[in-house]
Amino acid sequence: MQDVPFQLIAFDADDTLWVNEPLYRGAEDHLVDLLSPYLNGTDIRARLYDREVHNLNIFGYGAKAFILSMIETAVELTKGSISGGDVQRIVDSGKEMLAQPIKVLPGVEETLRALSGQFRLMVITKGDLFDQESKLARSGLAGYFSHVEIVSEKNEATYSAILGRYKVDPDRFIMFGNSLRSDILPIVNIGGHAAHIPCDTTWQHEHVDDVDAARGGYHELRHIGAVPEFLARWK
Amino acid sequence: MQDVPFQLIAFDADDTLWVNEPLYRGAEDHLVDLLSPYLNGTDIRARLYDREVHNLNIFGYGAKAFILSMIETAVELTKGSISGGDVQRIVDSGKEMLAQPIKVLPGVEETLRALSGQFRLMVITKGDLFDQESKLARSGLAGYFSHVEIVSEKNEATYSAILGRYKVDPDRFIMFGNSLRSDILPIVNIGGHAAHIPCDTTWQHEHVDDVDAARGGYHELRHIGAVPEFLARWK
Repeated sequence: MQDVPFQLIAFDADDTLWVNEPLYRGAEDHLVDLLSPYLNGTDIRARLYDREVHNLNIFGYGAKAFILSMIETAVELTKGSISGGDVQRIVDSGKEMLAQPIKVLPGVEETLRALSGQFRLMVITKGDLFDQESKLARSGLAGYFSHVEIVSEKNEATYSAILGRYKVDPDRFIMFGNSLRSDILPIVNIGGHAAHIPCDTTWQHEHVDDVDAARGGYHELRHIGAVPEFLARWK
Repeated sequence: MQDVPFQLIAFDADDTLWVNEPLYRGAEDHLVDLLSPYLNGTDIRARLYDREVHNLNIFGYGAKAFILSMIETAVELTKGSISGGDVQRIVDSGKEMLAQPIKVLPGVEETLRALSGQFRLMVITKGDLFDQESKLARSGLAGYFSHVEIVSEKNEATYSAILGRYKVDPDRFIMFGNSLRSDILPIVNIGGHAAHIPCDTTWQHEHVDDVDAARGGYHELRHIGAVPEFLARWK
């Protein structure tokens, strides 16, 4: 380990290390195709999103919660007239999503390889435990990480608990991720560093309107490939 | 901490600390009532079990996986003729299961209170991350535990990883739980201690036929209330 300010460097997983949101949007497109014959001009995507957000405090995040929300949306919007076969098609499109090969994003592997010799690396991801473990295993990236934390919610309490468990001061911790809401703001709020790496497709629930870029601890990078150079500046 | 042989004492959660399996069996009863008008003498419970086991490597353990398996079983057994309303009723019975108040089992609270001053206590549970965290919070028992590990599978690799992370030798670790398959055998196999506390209702997937009671590390207790005395014998 070099004499760097960061004792622990964490990465978000979905849409930071690998493609995720497009798989959800693909399943959503499939739902729209399936329901369109039953419906007239209903905004299926908006209703699905409302259902997902409503279900968050019952089901939490992740693929299984998403499949259940798709089913509930389908029953509700068709007023119960959806066929059993179409319900099964929704489950099948969810299963397909869970079994997709993992597409690691460009620059990720090189960056992790460059950093893993110098730093202690961690993945912090939220969602289904089983699904996230499976994705990490299938990504081929697991070997770069000393620690994996799969959490039910990414908020200040979660990050404080992780830092406490690993005995790392917030100001010696940095997180890289695509979600301002989940990966950046809570960390800045507890006195840590966080660098936003925007992604083309980020779930609307993860959006926040405004971030004070002048705020201490907040950084912005255009691409994950810029991480090693960004960290080198701290030496 | 007293000078005892155990550095870390772990408890399974579902059906060891609180009632769980009966909630699943209740939802299953509800499914049977719902499907019976569609069917003639089909063994719905057996087909649901087959579906659950088949789905384990896609969905993992836990309540959301169970709800999805109930839906698939319903569509399959009714050959797609199940109504949308009945699909929603299945989702609703799953949601009800997730929101049930937690019934802590008799003797649990007293035992944890007695042990928590003397030992470092851990919960190790498998299933839905979000649901298990929610149950622990609602149980009122969280304060007794120094550590909580929610895992996707309880096998030798999982337990070895946990002991490695906490730097505890297997022979200074003991686990208490109701499932021979998940809580006892893998731990005995890695050289740890495990005490089986049978429960009236244990999911059939957790059953194993035969355990060599003479095997080192394997213990059997009739009730969780017997744990403090059992541990006192080791002094």
